[in-house]
Amino acid sequence: MTAAIPPVLTPAYRLVFRLEILNRPGMFATVAQTIGEAGGSLGAIDLVQATPAVHVRDVTVDVSDEATGERLGQRLRKLEGVRVRAVSDRTFLMHLGGKVEIQGRVAVRTRDDLSLVYTPGVARVCRAIAADPQQAWTLTMKPNTVAIVSDGTAVLGLGNIGPLGALPVMEGKALLFRELAGISAFPIVIDAKGADEIVRTVVAIAPGFGGINLEDIAAPACFEVERELRERLDIPVFHDDQHGTAIVVLAGLQNAAAVCGVPLGSLRVAISGAGAAGLATARTLRAAGVRDIVVCDRQGVLARSRSDLGPTKAAFVEEVTPDAAPGTLADAVRGRDTFIGLSAPGLLSLEMVRSMARPRIVFALANPEPEIDPLVAAPETDILATGRSDHPNQVNNVLAFPGVFRGLLDARASAMTPDMELAAAAALAATVPARVRSAEYILPSVFDRKVVPAIARTVARAARAAGVARRGGSQRRQRPD
Amino acid sequence: MTAAIPPVLTPAYRLVFRLEILNRPGMFATVAQTIGEAGGSLGAIDLVQATPAVHVRDVTVDVSDEATGERLGQRLRKLEGVRVRAVSDRTFLMHLGGKVEIQGRVAVRTRDDLSLVYTPGVARVCRAIAADPQQAWTLTMKPNTVAIVSDGTAVLGLGNIGPLGALPVMEGKALLFRELAGISAFPIVIDAKGADEIVRTVVAIAPGFGGINLEDIAAPACFEVERELRERLDIPVFHDDQHGTAIVVLAGLQNAAAVCGVPLGSLRVAISGAGAAGLATARTLRAAGVRDIVVCDRQGVLARSRSDLGPTKAAFVEEVTPDAAPGTLADAVRGRDTFIGLSAPGLLSLEMVRSMARPRIVFALANPEPEIDPLVAAPETDILATGRSDHPNQVNNVLAFPGVFRGLLDARASAMTPDMELAAAAALAATVPARVRSAEYILPSVFDRKVVPAIARTVARAARAAGVARRGGSQRRQRPD
Repeated sequence: MTAAIPPVLTPAYRLVFRLEILNRPGMFATVAQTIGEAGGSLGAIDLVQATPAVHVRDVTVDVSDEATGERLGQRLRKLEGVRVRAVSDRTFLMHLGGKVEIQGRVAVRTRDDLSLVYTPGVARVCRAIAADPQQAWTLTMKPNTVAIVSDGTAVLGLGNIGPLGALPVMEGKALLFRELAGISAFPIVIDAKGADEIVRTVVAIAPGFGGINLEDIAAPACFEVERELRERLDIPVFHDDQHGTAIVVLAGLQNAAAVCGVPLGSLRVAISGAGAAGLATARTLRAAGVRDIVVCDRQGVLARSRSDLGPTKAAFVEEVTPDAAPGTLADAVRGRDTFIGLSAPGLLSLEMVRSMARPRIVFALANPEPEIDPLVAAPETDILATGRSDHPNQVNNVLAFPGVFRGLLDARASAMTPDMELAAAAALAATVPARVRSAEYILPSVFDRKVVPAIARTVARAARAAGVARRGGSQRRQRPD
Repeated sequence: MTAAIPPVLTPAYRLVFRLEILNRPGMFATVAQTIGEAGGSLGAIDLVQATPAVHVRDVTVDVSDEATGERLGQRLRKLEGVRVRAVSDRTFLMHLGGKVEIQGRVAVRTRDDLSLVYTPGVARVCRAIAADPQQAWTLTMKPNTVAIVSDGTAVLGLGNIGPLGALPVMEGKALLFRELAGISAFPIVIDAKGADEIVRTVVAIAPGFGGINLEDIAAPACFEVERELRERLDIPVFHDDQHGTAIVVLAGLQNAAAVCGVPLGSLRVAISGAGAAGLATARTLRAAGVRDIVVCDRQGVLARSRSDLGPTKAAFVEEVTPDAAPGTLADAVRGRDTFIGLSAPGLLSLEMVRSMARPRIVFALANPEPEIDPLVAAPETDILATGRSDHPNQVNNVLAFPGVFRGLLDARASAMTPDMELAAAAALAATVPARVRSAEYILPSVFDRKVVPAIARTVARAARAAGVARRGGSQRRQRPD
């Protein structure tokens, strides 16, 4: 039913061809034509070298996917008068040698420096911490350091690609922690079999960290890992796929409801997807006052009558949706006003959208391909959001985790509580002022510099209110510089 | 027997007093006199504020220990016409907020950047690594990242102060890895009970690292941890207390023997200390061709006839010193020409030194107080080395580990072998050219910029020779910048 989504040219597939082109009138036009015919979009052209006989040029081309890039390379190689000297791929170039590194915060250039930061001076600092472990919050990296932990079992849309395969995502996340929130986040990819081993490992390495960000761990293991760690550690544990998603969805939904002029609590919500994100989002919406929620997995609505639910989903039903009526996703959507897709491409048909009550709010968040083509859905919906950056209303976890952890660390929080999640969502929603809020502007840009401090202040305040803050009052950072 | 070692004023005990001093002739002289009488050494004096009535000055004072600093503060507080506004301690100030942090290697300022380093672009990099895990050596942080792992059970001279207490040492180490060898080293302090749990934890987190530096783990657990990890991981595992010490001692001894004009292999060596450093040094000296070695613990020479040896020491005796004659440390030293102390203050008496054969080589490396006062020992020895920076011939592990890991990473080594240790020691010894080598110059300064590249080249070459290098030929680093 769903129409194919047109290819998007993103700089994620930006190639640079170094071409040796015969110096002959019309030659470059032939190159440009070939690029266009092969599906490439011509970008910057740099002249590298020129002789009377040939011009060497670096030609930047955006393509929609790898196959197109391959095809383009083949065509260029066949062109008479053109030699392809090299092809480079900007995405891979940016990853060479990794995206993050450890740097010093103090200089060690002389023997004096050495005697302060290493032996013998460091011994006094060690003794001070051994005598009073709370001193580690001022005298070590702990107060500003987060572990980004993944076993690589549920990476993006790629599935179980293992710890090494997951590492570039964790490094990207570390980069965002640094750039957006000034946090030292270190990727820890774990070669582990099952929840127990992940828990044991994280507990063992926890002392040096001020917080734990779990990432891309498959359900249901992720739930057990998070529950166990929250019980055993005295630093906050945040599973981004659950809580990050829930915060951003709730914020978006708050603004969507406001734009539509209905109270959040009155929304009737069907969630597609019963993984980490779906279940956590349902719980958070319930905590925020949404009364009518059903969650569907591939087999339909999670309901008491289902005999095929595992323990995680069964417990979820008892806790959050005990009264859910069994049925298909289409049954769940019919007559409800809000659809939240955290599932798979194409699951929401146009008919299903048309069966919804008004105002129709559709968050089709499967990535990179949403549950319904946004171009198809847009005319039939009042508010439409996706996970993509090429449509209005991008629901992106990057909006939440930097600010949340900034706040947790500023408060030296010992835990992350559900109340702090609600507070974070409210703060995020409020970064879009009522006067500019609209059907196509329910969430801010990830580069909006107001977002992180707004969430951080609110989360730190909520931590103090919840009695889980080790530090009150000021939001001052360690040694600002 | 051993004379008390005079207190050393190191900048590790540098205090800054902010004093409000009555503007009256002779007042500052009184302050200076008080500082001198209390055992402080007056350093820089900065005028912070001056009114007709008072001068506010920051007065820098070096003291020998904390008690002296305390006493000085009390005396200054009692001085009439002086108010102590604040005392700050440079060592603690340099530790505020930690000594290392995670930084990005690429910028993320625009949506384009984001799409390259995070979703959607990063997915292609993940897939490439999942398809061929060796790609992680070019597309992630792995090729230049080392884990500095400690459980805090044997930290400096402080003993078992736990993982948090150990963290400042590991951060200091990370700082030195960065400053001296350009390596990203991340401190992982482990809350673990016993060798098994340390091994399990390190194996689990290993995928993201190119090497493991074990640090300050008590014997005998450290031996088991190292052995197991070397067996289970395909990246090098280096226990600095063992191999770092062994490399630097061997290098120093090679040059000491050369200065004395005797072959290394002919030295007759008594080692005091049968912990990680003592046993590893004995093994390495044996591998380097030293035939006569005995090792002593608190009960005397490790010998077959001893019934009180645990399994580690018993196995050591079988492997390295099966013919050692039982006896005391004094017996072991008598008639031998080389003493290597990796034990405790004051264990070597002047009589024992006088009982040694010539040329007398004494490495008294207990830190901060050596096995014998160097001022007492010097007249009776041909070569004298300590772990201290206030005497010639400092034996310091900082001379070894940065270059060793630079070489291991440059070669993408899968293991660290005994041959590579010998090669590292030879390279380190060779950084002191024969024409300048002397009884007071057997090892270079830790700030000698020749040291790291010299060791790195040699270790990488040795890795290739041993067949454990994943990368041959060039020493080129990832994306030099």
